[in-house]
Amino acid sequence: MPKISQKGLQMPESPIRKLVPFAEAAEAEGKSIYYLNIGQPDIPTPQKALDAVKNNDLNILSYSPSSGFDSYKTKLAKYYNQNGINISKDQLIVSTGGSEALMFAMGSITDPGDEVIIPEPFYANYNGFATAANVTVKAVQSKFEDNFALPPISEFEALITDKTKAIVMCNPGNPTGYLYTEDEVKQLADLALKHDLFVIADEVYREFTYDGAKHTSIMAVEGLENHAIMVDSVSKRYSMCGARIGCMVSRNTEVMAAAMKFAQARLSPPTFAQIASEAALDVDQTYFENINSEYVNRRDTLIEALGQIEGIKVAKPRGAFYCIVELPVQNSEHFAKWLLSNFEVNGKTVMVAPAAGFYSTPNTGLNQIRIAYVLEKEHLLEAVSILEAGLKAYQGD
Amino acid sequence: MPKISQKGLQMPESPIRKLVPFAEAAEAEGKSIYYLNIGQPDIPTPQKALDAVKNNDLNILSYSPSSGFDSYKTKLAKYYNQNGINISKDQLIVSTGGSEALMFAMGSITDPGDEVIIPEPFYANYNGFATAANVTVKAVQSKFEDNFALPPISEFEALITDKTKAIVMCNPGNPTGYLYTEDEVKQLADLALKHDLFVIADEVYREFTYDGAKHTSIMAVEGLENHAIMVDSVSKRYSMCGARIGCMVSRNTEVMAAAMKFAQARLSPPTFAQIASEAALDVDQTYFENINSEYVNRRDTLIEALGQIEGIKVAKPRGAFYCIVELPVQNSEHFAKWLLSNFEVNGKTVMVAPAAGFYSTPNTGLNQIRIAYVLEKEHLLEAVSILEAGLKAYQGD
Ligand SMILES: Cc1ncc(COP(=O)(O)O)c(C=O)c1O
Ligand SMILES: Cc1ncc(COP(=O)(O)O)c(C=O)c1O
Repeated sequence: MPKISQKGLQMPESPIRKLVPFAEAAEAEGKSIYYLNIGQPDIPTPQKALDAVKNNDLNILSYSPSSGFDSYKTKLAKYYNQNGINISKDQLIVSTGGSEALMFAMGSITDPGDEVIIPEPFYANYNGFATAANVTVKAVQSKFEDNFALPPISEFEALITDKTKAIVMCNPGNPTGYLYTEDEVKQLADLALKHDLFVIADEVYREFTYDGAKHTSIMAVEGLENHAIMVDSVSKRYSMCGARIGCMVSRNTEVMAAAMKFAQARLSPPTFAQIASEAALDVDQTYFENINSEYVNRRDTLIEALGQIEGIKVAKPRGAFYCIVELPVQNSEHFAKWLLSNFEVNGKTVMVAPAAGFYSTPNTGLNQIRIAYVLEKEHLLEAVSILEAGLKAYQGD
Repeated sequence: MPKISQKGLQMPESPIRKLVPFAEAAEAEGKSIYYLNIGQPDIPTPQKALDAVKNNDLNILSYSPSSGFDSYKTKLAKYYNQNGINISKDQLIVSTGGSEALMFAMGSITDPGDEVIIPEPFYANYNGFATAANVTVKAVQSKFEDNFALPPISEFEALITDKTKAIVMCNPGNPTGYLYTEDEVKQLADLALKHDLFVIADEVYREFTYDGAKHTSIMAVEGLENHAIMVDSVSKRYSMCGARIGCMVSRNTEVMAAAMKFAQARLSPPTFAQIASEAALDVDQTYFENINSEYVNRRDTLIEALGQIEGIKVAKPRGAFYCIVELPVQNSEHFAKWLLSNFEVNGKTVMVAPAAGFYSTPNTGLNQIRIAYVLEKEHLLEAVSILEAGLKAYQGD
């Protein structure tokens, strides 16, 4: 029997999907589950976006240009311009989700054996994309006690070798909910300039910032024109995860020319989804204001409720819709499995994401979970009370 | 300024898109162009597929499962069962186009430095996917004189090293239109078994077979269960190129487990497009019969018309909708550019794909072009007459 690849063996399993079989078994037994484990918002997709697809008058569903429809790129560039990012439509490539934009960025700047530095905990699939590209992730640890603020720059510098090609940052952060300050973004930018590294900034949660805090885009930092690569997505912004539309943005013409060749090889991003994404750009600012106040509400509800539980600590998020929670258990994965397999309150239980999968340093974050506050208030409250009851009943490690 | 990757530099430009700037310039000058260069069918997408999308009642466009919607996988498995391929829904992963299925397959079985053997000329993006994965393509030359039949197995064997992981075959072939006989498929299967190699069979044109010839799927060859990987797509089958739905199929559980990790990292294939693809499976057999008789008609028209032109030779296709044509010029790329930039008949000209980009051996196929017969008869005839006039007028090499 022929052997699969080393990389196929080494590809990490998604920490979020790892527990899915246990959830499926629980559901098969008739339990109902509150899913706090995935970043799938329950917010309705803007009607304008759905209607644009319903009202399309295509009769041949053709390939779009590899970099996306011109009309969409034009409107998207305008959206960025209105958000303080001065780019033209030729400085962006429409991708199949932010996921593909991350792969284009990796492919354009790294070769096998190269290294990227990422503050951990980080979006777990960065590990997958790095493994697929034979690139090594070097992690700088950000700290629960600091709400996962930027670690000292000296810790980044300690990891830089001649193989280092980029710093990857997620802002606001998944799984941390941390929003980098302007000063922190500038510190990273200075570091990149000093060592001539790329910065890949994953800004898919750019619109989700709370408490009046402002988002600083990597594309808005002066002097970083050749170093900055932004990754974005409509998935969370418009609750359109299933569309599969994102984009890669850079002013570096060599990077964009390379990315364009990857884009051409896969032909084009999906047509219906581009139609939806273009229409979604017509929502007005109140759309984001309403959603953000909903998320702030949920966050405050969640954090207050968690605060009542003995032995629990929360790193307070100011962006995205995740937070990391420390539990009074030693192994949150065991606990999460137990919640699914052996626990219920009136036929209901909770699914959470063990946080260890978001760290690349082994045996880190073992007592932490990530909670996505993507459910409405009452459901969140009930889920937290189930979690509390579970912690009381739990006899494991 | 930080450097882009070697791989980013080495990624080949698509031979089909290379001439696009010349075409754009010609259109800007007011010329109209017959596009014989790309495999974008003019056949309407099945109304059922379009309607399913128009009538969708989603209000949250969520991620689908990473391997695709269960309902779609179930129906798709049934389609294969009806076509003599006995697989279950767990032996397939829904991908974002056949393109992504090719990348999943490559990633699951190759590491940097590995080799794959492909009969040339071949679908040019195999080069791109191989470069992206740092895999080397070794080409076995199939011959114009044989209509690009399978080259002798000894020529494959001569290229096998301990780095060889797979044979990639395209059946029916793009750009050749060649349909492998059952015997040829079995020869390749025996070779794979003898040397314990994978066979990646790209069968995206599986429904396009003419003159009563039957398609032999790699999945239908007994004994090859652990070696066969099939790549498929709805793009051409249902004229749904813009949907971006394909699939990877294999009975090798290790391969599928590895591919599944790549699929999870990118989250999910597009939702609207899966809805369309699922509905497209409801078209009945007459749909394919009508389309195939249309393509046979076009092929016969094209080949007869080309046959009238002095100095032209055609390799007769029995599948897909491409053929390779030998022109009485030395450099078909120069000629193709000239057609766009310096020639017209009543304001019209033709765009063809120079065939050299489909060969990986340098300086091969320089006098050949690929024609996609994706236009209706009258347009094809006019396009051929423009080509003929162009050849007469051409003074270049
Ligand atoms: C930080 C981050 N980046 C990228 C992605 C990829 O999302 P998509 O491919 O749906 O745009 C996600 C999805 O959860 C994410 O959380
Ligand atoms: C031989 C072959 N394989 C794969 C593809 C990829 O098509 P898609 O990604 O649209 O399924 C094409 C497209 O032209 C093709 O010709």
